Amino acid sequence: MNMPIEMKPETLKTVAATMRALGAEARSAARLLALAPTEAKNAALVAAARELRANTAAIVAANALDLAAAAEARRPAAYLDRLMLDPKRIEGMAKGLEEVARLPDPVGAVIAQWTRPNGLKIERVRVPLGVVGIIYESRPNVTADAGALCLKAGNAAILRGGSDSHHSSRAIQLCLARGLSEAKLPETAIQLVPTTDREAVGLMLKGLDGAIDVIVPRGGKSLVGRVQEEARVPMFAHLEGICHTYVDRSADLAMAQALVVNAKMRRTGVCGATETLLVDTQAPAGMLKTLIAQLIEAGCEVRGDAAAQAADTRVKPATEQDWSTEYLDAIISVKTVDGVDGAMAHIRTYGSQHTDSILAQDQAAADRFLARLDSAIVLHNASTQFADGGEFGMGAEIGIATGRLHARGPVGVEQLTTFKYIVRGTGQARPG
Amino acid sequence: MNMPIEMKPETLKTVAATMRALGAEARSAARLLALAPTEAKNAALVAAARELRANTAAIVAANALDLAAAAEARRPAAYLDRLMLDPKRIEGMAKGLEEVARLPDPVGAVIAQWTRPNGLKIERVRVPLGVVGIIYESRPNVTADAGALCLKAGNAAILRGGSDSHHSSRAIQLCLARGLSEAKLPETAIQLVPTTDREAVGLMLKGLDGAIDVIVPRGGKSLVGRVQEEARVPMFAHLEGICHTYVDRSADLAMAQALVVNAKMRRTGVCGATETLLVDTQAPAGMLKTLIAQLIEAGCEVRGDAAAQAADTRVKPATEQDWSTEYLDAIISVKTVDGVDGAMAHIRTYGSQHTDSILAQDQAAADRFLARLDSAIVLHNASTQFADGGEFGMGAEIGIATGRLHARGPVGVEQLTTFKYIVRGTGQARPG
Repeated sequence: MNMPIEMKPETLKTVAATMRALGAEARSAARLLALAPTEAKNAALVAAARELRANTAAIVAANALDLAAAAEARRPAAYLDRLMLDPKRIEGMAKGLEEVARLPDPVGAVIAQWTRPNGLKIERVRVPLGVVGIIYESRPNVTADAGALCLKAGNAAILRGGSDSHHSSRAIQLCLARGLSEAKLPETAIQLVPTTDREAVGLMLKGLDGAIDVIVPRGGKSLVGRVQEEARVPMFAHLEGICHTYVDRSADLAMAQALVVNAKMRRTGVCGATETLLVDTQAPAGMLKTLIAQLIEAGCEVRGDAAAQAADTRVKPATEQDWSTEYLDAIISVKTVDGVDGAMAHIRTYGSQHTDSILAQDQAAADRFLARLDSAIVLHNASTQFADGGEFGMGAEIGIATGRLHARGPVGVEQLTTFKYIVRGTGQARPG
Repeated sequence: MNMPIEMKPETLKTVAATMRALGAEARSAARLLALAPTEAKNAALVAAARELRANTAAIVAANALDLAAAAEARRPAAYLDRLMLDPKRIEGMAKGLEEVARLPDPVGAVIAQWTRPNGLKIERVRVPLGVVGIIYESRPNVTADAGALCLKAGNAAILRGGSDSHHSSRAIQLCLARGLSEAKLPETAIQLVPTTDREAVGLMLKGLDGAIDVIVPRGGKSLVGRVQEEARVPMFAHLEGICHTYVDRSADLAMAQALVVNAKMRRTGVCGATETLLVDTQAPAGMLKTLIAQLIEAGCEVRGDAAAQAADTRVKPATEQDWSTEYLDAIISVKTVDGVDGAMAHIRTYGSQHTDSILAQDQAAADRFLARLDSAIVLHNASTQFADGGEFGMGAEIGIATGRLHARGPVGVEQLTTFKYIVRGTGQARPG
């Protein structure tokens, strides 16, 4: 089949006018979507999955244009891999849409209800957030994943993908639009910014004259940093995941061996990967040495403090910079600390309030860590790699938030909603 | 007694250095306060109430300085009244602190808990927000009210009162600090910005290098507008409360008569006061006329559309500007609309997503209004003046928020908290 994958010509409109129109369309779509029955939203998701599968060839062809341009621009291999779509990855996106269709619909749920002495019945009811702006980089699959989560939560989405993946994202977004249309929902509920002009991002960060309720940046530290710097609307994001695993003197050695390697090495590129290992100075002799040796044998570069270097000659000296570095790679920093309080002091200084874990058999030490450390996720005797909406049982997530407001930790469909108060009376006037 | 009410001399420090130090102190106080037992927080509140009563004379004396300066600056009478403190108002503040002490402590509550198939036990636990910045104007009682709510929720507060009320606010804050000290909590948990330099507000709006988690502006539209324009940190606020009462064709006339007058006239200066009355064009003959006559007899100026003017010759013509004006006074705008959909179209165009009410006996019309109108508070057959944390049973509130994120509607102690995830394992590594 022949699917149009080019941008609409916007030559006659300024970027500002294009974006204003897009914002207004998103706002009206959001109003309709807020009232859409669960069945319609699910039907759109399932139809979009079908469209993705049916248009696999066209999507791969669109992706080839992006890949060719990226190769010409001499992007590194890892970058090209993130950009690449093949039938297997397209099938993965389609399955993702079907999974979101199976999630419970958060909209309309009564979160709380009570009756006042004067007879007023008050309900706190979940409603969609409104319009979500998503700004992402080279991974075109974010188009489907983020669009689907916004749709399920009754929100309109304005997607701004990286210019390097624009053809791919456009081909995917067309499938989502067709799914919406088949389910008699507005196609404008999931829009892709039709221009790759950087000005469009600036306008989104200012909220498009009130059309955008929340911004979700998906990408590397420089993208998220820019968004945090410039955004004038609320945002769900984490700048980085400098996650720690602290091994207490009371830790079980076998458990620590298994969990430290898992926390660092299962996948090094995820935000929940441990970046710094903290080991109690009072840990049994050999604990530090064993953990380091295992990491090195698993293929991890270890940069450590004096004690870590003394424990294994293969340990490179860590610099001050290492304690605040998110490697996202097979590198770990290792430091010895004075018990649970020493660990917490280090984490408060260098951490990013994302995910931190204590390995300990001493329940008091664990309780202290869990109660006192104020990260979005704190774990006891478990791998930091569980920091993931799916692993929490929340289904797919649009990201992990380290901000303190509204959404904290995994941001799934429920976190993409807000609430309103419905008050039912029988003629109550307020006295006094 | 002789209580120091002057600002500390800050001549040797720049405003920036002063504010940075204040932010750092608030952050450390917040860490201690987050772990403070309920009893200690309550003891501090009760002790602060005692201090307020014991220092009534000193507070009145400090207030006299502010009042004298404001009179010299030829502030209007209403302004002087907001600024004025007398023993009765001080007793009101003290009672307010004791009421906050009696509220349930939201911190530590387990909001949700579940166990994953792999045995991980996940808890979502309420924790304080951190540091709350409150920027307010002439009412010195905000010092006590806002400080108390922040304290109860385990947050540190940075209070920046209007320069016109600085002596009064300082006298009140000293009582709060003594209460904290008596309860062995850090006095720096409730700080008053020690300089009236406007630069301090700008620095707070930028978040004091990450020391402030959320800003709450308390005051008129120009203050809130400035904060919304400049704030780089999240904020709980409403710019204005353009609240509507819609009288449907099915409304009970006697109920409408009682509720319309109450919604407008009970107190005209509160944000939940109705500013626009919408009447169904299909309402029974005489309904519009009766409601207008009652408002005028209650002392309210009525500005209306052609139908309203035709119904009563005392009605002044409403201009386009009237539909988006928050009078906060004994003035109301009146418009006839085409049923519940006409009412919603008007409210969506001119409203402020604060509080809107439908008066109707037709349940379908009411359900449509409650489901479709996306204001923070929607009511059926009740006065808009119920838009108030106390009336909702949430206790005292720091304000009403019309933003969509985190806190919406009344912002009480619970809304001044966030949550974190606590995950308890027994050695789980993440597969795959």
